[in-house]
Amino acid sequence: MCELLGMSANVPTDICFSFSGFLHRGGGTGPHRDGWGIAFYEAGGYREFRDPHPSVDSPIARLICDYPIKSHTVISHIRQANVGGVNLANTHPFTREMWGRLWCYAHNGQLSGWQTLPLDVFTPVGSTDSEHAFCYLLGELRREFPTPPEAPEALWQAVHRACERLRELGVFNLLLSDGTYLYTYCTTKLAHITRRAPFGEAVLSDAEMTVNFAEHTTCHDIVSVIATEPLTQNERWCKMAPGELLVWRNGAIEARFEASMPISV
Amino acid sequence: MCELLGMSANVPTDICFSFSGFLHRGGGTGPHRDGWGIAFYEAGGYREFRDPHPSVDSPIARLICDYPIKSHTVISHIRQANVGGVNLANTHPFTREMWGRLWCYAHNGQLSGWQTLPLDVFTPVGSTDSEHAFCYLLGELRREFPTPPEAPEALWQAVHRACERLRELGVFNLLLSDGTYLYTYCTTKLAHITRRAPFGEAVLSDAEMTVNFAEHTTCHDIVSVIATEPLTQNERWCKMAPGELLVWRNGAIEARFEASMPISV
Repeated sequence: MCELLGMSANVPTDICFSFSGFLHRGGGTGPHRDGWGIAFYEAGGYREFRDPHPSVDSPIARLICDYPIKSHTVISHIRQANVGGVNLANTHPFTREMWGRLWCYAHNGQLSGWQTLPLDVFTPVGSTDSEHAFCYLLGELRREFPTPPEAPEALWQAVHRACERLRELGVFNLLLSDGTYLYTYCTTKLAHITRRAPFGEAVLSDAEMTVNFAEHTTCHDIVSVIATEPLTQNERWCKMAPGELLVWRNGAIEARFEASMPISV
Repeated sequence: MCELLGMSANVPTDICFSFSGFLHRGGGTGPHRDGWGIAFYEAGGYREFRDPHPSVDSPIARLICDYPIKSHTVISHIRQANVGGVNLANTHPFTREMWGRLWCYAHNGQLSGWQTLPLDVFTPVGSTDSEHAFCYLLGELRREFPTPPEAPEALWQAVHRACERLRELGVFNLLLSDGTYLYTYCTTKLAHITRRAPFGEAVLSDAEMTVNFAEHTTCHDIVSVIATEPLTQNERWCKMAPGELLVWRNGAIEARFEASMPISV
């Protein structure tokens, strides 16, 4: 399996602290040695860094820790391969342009029967179930909305419907963004925390590091972090429910959708 | 204007030497301070690094110099903005997926009347003439070939036709790749050099650096570098002609197309 890390914030914020803990799970405190990646939305632009090597040994990952990139939305992934070889083409996150926006996607889980998911405009480059599901998901949205819908609620519902269909095929924990919204969808495991004033101290679980957010923030900042497993040991993280979709914007939850079909246990 | 740097090689090769000279033109020996980017095709995968700041001061650019990424095909660009603000969305190279391949593109020049170039599946994210022309070019290819043509010559010809149409709008020097072929098209300025056995010494023009390629290669290696201006001072570079398209593969020229319309002087 893999692990996911996401961030949504109302001010450009770096993710150095959370990423410092997260990258240790890529071959250090965790077994996810098969590559890693991180994507940043910055002032209307987008960039990503990906490496098919363990994050804990990666000079590029160290650069991300040391070079604070300020962003409203971040998606990161460390990989423990199941479907698809260990190489750059199979390294998350994946990206496609739709409606003049760059969509970024990372998946944790494993699907069965994914090969028959119909594809339209978007075609996988690598050989993972994850990228195929991404191309399917975006293709479904584009089929329903050849141009972006005026009411964002219609799009959120379509994202949730597609996620629920993918949940029927197995484990589908998702981070997805178009740069404005961050979508987080849970099948088995995803937790989140929102930090806002009064800010306190946080202690990483995976590395010896403590930060006092009060020193780095203003009282108007809202920063949410979403991860497969909580990254800090002294804060209370909320667990998402199976089938739940959260739509984040500017650090806060803008919409929430519950499972539309029974949860199999 | 901007500057372009490309590489095609028959063995995975790093571009540290050429890039070390090139990045000095991004605010050091040259005026191209408005961002830079570099893309690598590696073993079927693709990754890029982009920064809206001058390359000469960029910690990410320094990482690229120090961390040898081995690749068959590289496209790089340093920007001096004319159309479109200085930000990440307007920073080359640009990327789109078509036919399950990631296409990478960088442009040097300036076009007039580009706003009316028709778009189909691909839509610009930023506001440059360059990205609009890229979306037009790929859209034309996809319209002509909904699936990739079996004979690559048909595709090469279509690329040349689209480039010639863009040349009618102004200066269009191009680097384009789908990971297998590197296309270089010249309107005004593009030079190339092919290095193969017996390898010699090369001296950069923009930085105090010399490399003896004989120490880093085997006698079967073929490595070609394409750039707006020659990067070395002791080697003989070939200048491309206006309207000329070269199709590179594994370090060598696979096909060459000459201008199909008169050259205006």
